[in-house]
Amino acid sequence: MTFTVLKNDSGGTLARRGVLTTRHGNVQTPVFMPVGTQGTVKAMAPNELEEMGAEIILGNTYHLNLRPGMDIMSQAGGLHKFMDWNHAILTDSGGFQVFSLSKLNKKTPDGVHFQSHIDGSPLFMGPVESMAIQRIIGSDIAMAFDECTPYPVSHSDAEKSLELTLRWERISSEQPHAEGQMLFGIVQGSVYEDLRRHSIEELSKMPFDGIAVGGVSVGESEEEMVKVLRICGPLLPKDKPHYLMGVGTPRQMVLGIMNGIDMFDCVLPTRMGRNGSAYTPYGTIPVKAGKYKEDFTPILEGCGCYACRHFTKAYIRHLLNTNEILGSRLMTIHNLHYFVNLMREIRASLEDGTFGRLAEDVLKNYPEMTKAEDE
Amino acid sequence: MTFTVLKNDSGGTLARRGVLTTRHGNVQTPVFMPVGTQGTVKAMAPNELEEMGAEIILGNTYHLNLRPGMDIMSQAGGLHKFMDWNHAILTDSGGFQVFSLSKLNKKTPDGVHFQSHIDGSPLFMGPVESMAIQRIIGSDIAMAFDECTPYPVSHSDAEKSLELTLRWERISSEQPHAEGQMLFGIVQGSVYEDLRRHSIEELSKMPFDGIAVGGVSVGESEEEMVKVLRICGPLLPKDKPHYLMGVGTPRQMVLGIMNGIDMFDCVLPTRMGRNGSAYTPYGTIPVKAGKYKEDFTPILEGCGCYACRHFTKAYIRHLLNTNEILGSRLMTIHNLHYFVNLMREIRASLEDGTFGRLAEDVLKNYPEMTKAEDE
Repeated sequence: MTFTVLKNDSGGTLARRGVLTTRHGNVQTPVFMPVGTQGTVKAMAPNELEEMGAEIILGNTYHLNLRPGMDIMSQAGGLHKFMDWNHAILTDSGGFQVFSLSKLNKKTPDGVHFQSHIDGSPLFMGPVESMAIQRIIGSDIAMAFDECTPYPVSHSDAEKSLELTLRWERISSEQPHAEGQMLFGIVQGSVYEDLRRHSIEELSKMPFDGIAVGGVSVGESEEEMVKVLRICGPLLPKDKPHYLMGVGTPRQMVLGIMNGIDMFDCVLPTRMGRNGSAYTPYGTIPVKAGKYKEDFTPILEGCGCYACRHFTKAYIRHLLNTNEILGSRLMTIHNLHYFVNLMREIRASLEDGTFGRLAEDVLKNYPEMTKAEDE
Repeated sequence: MTFTVLKNDSGGTLARRGVLTTRHGNVQTPVFMPVGTQGTVKAMAPNELEEMGAEIILGNTYHLNLRPGMDIMSQAGGLHKFMDWNHAILTDSGGFQVFSLSKLNKKTPDGVHFQSHIDGSPLFMGPVESMAIQRIIGSDIAMAFDECTPYPVSHSDAEKSLELTLRWERISSEQPHAEGQMLFGIVQGSVYEDLRRHSIEELSKMPFDGIAVGGVSVGESEEEMVKVLRICGPLLPKDKPHYLMGVGTPRQMVLGIMNGIDMFDCVLPTRMGRNGSAYTPYGTIPVKAGKYKEDFTPILEGCGCYACRHFTKAYIRHLLNTNEILGSRLMTIHNLHYFVNLMREIRASLEDGTFGRLAEDVLKNYPEMTKAEDE
């Protein structure tokens, strides 16, 4: 339950090489966290995540609370045992889904009344409830309950949303934790510098173990995302881990790391994989496309993932076109391996002082902005 | 490319313990062959099939001919390379699908005019075409092109169908093979003893490396299936491998083995797995059922499969209910492991003279008949 910065970037950015110690092992940072929304990283088995070197995954409080529900989760002894994952787990607070998935929702000072997106049943979640759920899930890192401010938003609406979020975060920080569970606060304030500053100042007064930048990857331009990163980066407490929520593409992650971010999560590699897009150092390629029909080379030459070591684009394209589960599996394996391995390379580059060059390559090869969405 | 009977059942049935030598390794018999319709055993990766001890899988000529098509298959160097499976492959002839999947079909002495079930395009397949396709696929065992006689059928219609099948099988046997490729003939004749006898007599005159009993598991009662097995079993050439096509349940496989069958294939373990039914020594259990909601024991205590070593019914039920791919994967792993392992136990029982007792247990625990269908 400690975070140690091992080395700062010798190239002058805010990037740092660190290690986060959790109840379920060390997490080397910067790190990409595969998303396991419903107690499984889609299409993957835990041993495959281990094999590619994943040290932490994300679980989803909102979804797990609906299915399997906390009665079963409690009897199972928490999410690690339920899904047989013996490494670290971070849970989001459920706040994002309460607003984005539920058609009807009503805010109160203590939380949100909403309807289950599955059966429409009336539910309520606020900081007390979210923390209680995350306690039962037993994640290594819990997130404070917040409102992910929508985009675009006026300054006054963003301010109102931030004040409610700060109230909810304070209440979150006062709740009991699971044994050894860390709690991260979340910076909101949309694209407004004064609000982001105010948010960080207020959070600094609360007993959080880490700090996340939220409210990005919600439809804003990359320019605006970078603006938020440049505002927040220098102000984030240096001795705590920094997590950029819901981000993103290789390019966006590199931009985040340059601004002091240590942790990322995103559904892009899993979702785009299932949809047939494979990550390479030169952007994504549509493996379903006709031009790969007779391409008997791997998705990415030299890639060490199971898919690239054993199968060709022609075969994987065939699997995708015939809707075979193995197609989704191989694409997911490749993409997650690509993300996890990119972070491994970034960590090595921070250790040997070559991060600047690596970052430049990624920024050049991924010029485009891809919208990251919730799975 | 040889078949050796290692031991006959000391208990007086026609059961035998054998070994089939193929270009891609030995296959210990009796054996269950997982079905890989479209160049993949649904939901499985080749390494998982290897881990459970599968030595041979089935590929589907009709489906592979449509997708990816023989241009790509040929360039890939055959199915083994295409799907990265280095063990034995048996291909069916495509005859079954030509009749069952195609809405419009028209028989001629040389084959069948039919429409692709994917895009309706007009196609033709007969013994010459089927053998040419199987040559490109490069299976270790090819099947002669036949008509799987529908059930129920009159004696005269069954006889006509058999005569056409015998013509097609003769033509099949005259076609060139892939290097080292074996060719099996198929016994038809529906439930009629004279036709089955005639079929076996005629096939014995053709140069087949093995012989299959077809036209079962097509809707007939178990009593009728057993009747066919009892007619055919004693007449099948003792020095050749015997394959019961499309069968079946553990009970049906045991009945087959008692009547001299060495090889089986069936979509039941994969399909029923994806649909939520798990095989146990005491019949199948519906893992999706509410009663397993809080069941934190494996599908089958003591089972050595990956699913049972790591996960509970409660977790797998959650995955099935949330339509997670891992749910289909774990159910498929368990069921295929169950079938492959049952054959391993049957082989061991034939070696140590306890087959009779094992057979009795299976027949007692699986009293019901489950209809086996095409995947």
